[in-house]
Amino acid sequence: METELSKKLGIEHAIFGFTPFPAVAAAITRAGGFGVLGAVRYTAPDDLKRDLDWMQENTGGLPYGLDVVMPAKKVEGVTEAEVEAMIPEGHRQFVQETLAKYGVPHLAEGEASGWRITGWMEQVARNQLDVAFDYPIKLLANALGSPPADVVERAHAQNVLVAALAGSAKHAKRHAEAGIDIVVAQGYEAGGHTGEIASMVLTPEVVDAVGPLPVLAAGGIGSGEQIAAGIALGAQGVWLGSLWLTTTEAEMHSRALTAKLLAAGSGDTVRSRALTGKPARQLRTEWTDAWDDPSGPGTLPMPLQGLLVAEAVSRIQKHEVEPLLGTPVGQIVGRMNSERSVQAVFDDLTRGFERAVDRINRIAGRSQ
Amino acid sequence: METELSKKLGIEHAIFGFTPFPAVAAAITRAGGFGVLGAVRYTAPDDLKRDLDWMQENTGGLPYGLDVVMPAKKVEGVTEAEVEAMIPEGHRQFVQETLAKYGVPHLAEGEASGWRITGWMEQVARNQLDVAFDYPIKLLANALGSPPADVVERAHAQNVLVAALAGSAKHAKRHAEAGIDIVVAQGYEAGGHTGEIASMVLTPEVVDAVGPLPVLAAGGIGSGEQIAAGIALGAQGVWLGSLWLTTTEAEMHSRALTAKLLAAGSGDTVRSRALTGKPARQLRTEWTDAWDDPSGPGTLPMPLQGLLVAEAVSRIQKHEVEPLLGTPVGQIVGRMNSERSVQAVFDDLTRGFERAVDRINRIAGRSQ
Repeated sequence: METELSKKLGIEHAIFGFTPFPAVAAAITRAGGFGVLGAVRYTAPDDLKRDLDWMQENTGGLPYGLDVVMPAKKVEGVTEAEVEAMIPEGHRQFVQETLAKYGVPHLAEGEASGWRITGWMEQVARNQLDVAFDYPIKLLANALGSPPADVVERAHAQNVLVAALAGSAKHAKRHAEAGIDIVVAQGYEAGGHTGEIASMVLTPEVVDAVGPLPVLAAGGIGSGEQIAAGIALGAQGVWLGSLWLTTTEAEMHSRALTAKLLAAGSGDTVRSRALTGKPARQLRTEWTDAWDDPSGPGTLPMPLQGLLVAEAVSRIQKHEVEPLLGTPVGQIVGRMNSERSVQAVFDDLTRGFERAVDRINRIAGRSQ
Repeated sequence: METELSKKLGIEHAIFGFTPFPAVAAAITRAGGFGVLGAVRYTAPDDLKRDLDWMQENTGGLPYGLDVVMPAKKVEGVTEAEVEAMIPEGHRQFVQETLAKYGVPHLAEGEASGWRITGWMEQVARNQLDVAFDYPIKLLANALGSPPADVVERAHAQNVLVAALAGSAKHAKRHAEAGIDIVVAQGYEAGGHTGEIASMVLTPEVVDAVGPLPVLAAGGIGSGEQIAAGIALGAQGVWLGSLWLTTTEAEMHSRALTAKLLAAGSGDTVRSRALTGKPARQLRTEWTDAWDDPSGPGTLPMPLQGLLVAEAVSRIQKHEVEPLLGTPVGQIVGRMNSERSVQAVFDDLTRGFERAVDRINRIAGRSQ
């Protein structure tokens, strides 16, 4: 599976794997793909440094990348406390009532609350970048809008390609104007923040909008057949996130969450604002139902919702409160039915791709 | 583009075109595809007879099919008037107020109101079938659930294949158990009634659920590249509906509606219950916005919503009230930007398919 982009990056297969887990990212790279480590949870630069050191030792000189979250909108001139104060008391009460209803225990003294997407993520991301640029990363992806011009410049000065996710052709064009090198076309069916246009329609629209810039198809891709579909739609490769969550190398919060992922069908996700205030696809749970219920207070805009629920989400995860336990994941969760190694998953992808190509050729009447 | 199914039906390309217009259906068949005439608007059997006679004369012995709407749930023991009486007065008022707000004129004396999907559609559909089985149709499709057992039997006795649309693997299995021959996997991005699973995920799920029954990919398909993607996903062909609405052979309600379709982007549709009471993708208009607005009365369940809005929709169409004017259409509407003949559209599809196969082979490293 060789495209101009895969040649440029020196990888065997144009399969990009996004994951928050270094062990998964390294295994994807070792398997001949391109591992992209999600940096959002590294609030302490030293933690990122430790894991990038580990990546260096475990990728044998093969290329990998980093994914940061830099919100397009900066929050300036206000403190985090001032923004916290914007959260209505009724919403705080709703969080506490919902947690109480399910008997969710508190965190222990000193236990850290989870990550949250806030307006201050840019500073966090910049600290991450200061660390990351000391490593030979080959790709820098931004999950939320175009990265700032100086970041693109700095990346290019170090021969690091820059990618950005887009849910519409309009957003993709904006990224191209910002000088990025790769657009990840993130379809409606994808996990995490998504728009409403499905991959089947979005991928070729983005290819047309930004060509000759390379486009990766993301959303709904978890098999070699789906990779072939993404390539058919004009992509120069695919970007998979959800599929790795049930690999043996993934370090999920809890066994209960892994069990939920393995059991879930494609209809068990929802595009909800419950997590960050922007629509993000995730497992549908009684927690997302509570936020999406018209009789409740509804969600707050980003960054307020993320601030509001951060501690609650940590409590739910920490104590494995099953009905409320969720995670961002795409509709492909319906096919994530067993725990396997990254290498086994990757082998299935490449074999499935070859089978799909064989079948297309038979149907197209091409002699082989 | 030859699959087992296309061979069985004796068509050159496994491209199925659904359309309410005989001229379009016949042109699809003549181009080497398989035209499927939507029968829902033929409330008078003689009208259907006239158009099937025309189809016979204009398809030169090549195969075509018919699509009927038989709701899975029958309404029994109540009259249409009794069901009409179930519509709350507040909803009727909302219709009148909304029409008044936009100055929508009344229909002229004796002018017929448009079609509506009701519990009585089954009788209408059975009358249509009595007509249709006198013609050498090769396929009978049901747009709403599995057809009744006696209809399947009657079709099979006449060597007519039976197809049914499914928005989930579960529905597809139910169809297979009902003895149908072809499942049309209708993705989230499709026009008309749809579920929430996008084609990229739905198509292979349905293939796995009902194989070896042939599956057609529907939803988001409007180019040869998208056809190749559907084939990559395991389909034995594709089912396209929206794409034909802007062909020169289409007899749309009004030029204003065609202009709206040509101008619309992929983000200009909405999955709304406004038309029938079940979620159906259509152009987003001020009419759908009014029904989807939380401050309004909301929609009624099928068949009440269809009964409630039938006359209003006719008035809007008849008088071309631009802000309210809509039609079922999929996200592919973003690519319907010029009026061309069915043959020209069809040639683009087959050429685009060949290009996509060339590209996949290059990327897969297959020598040609």
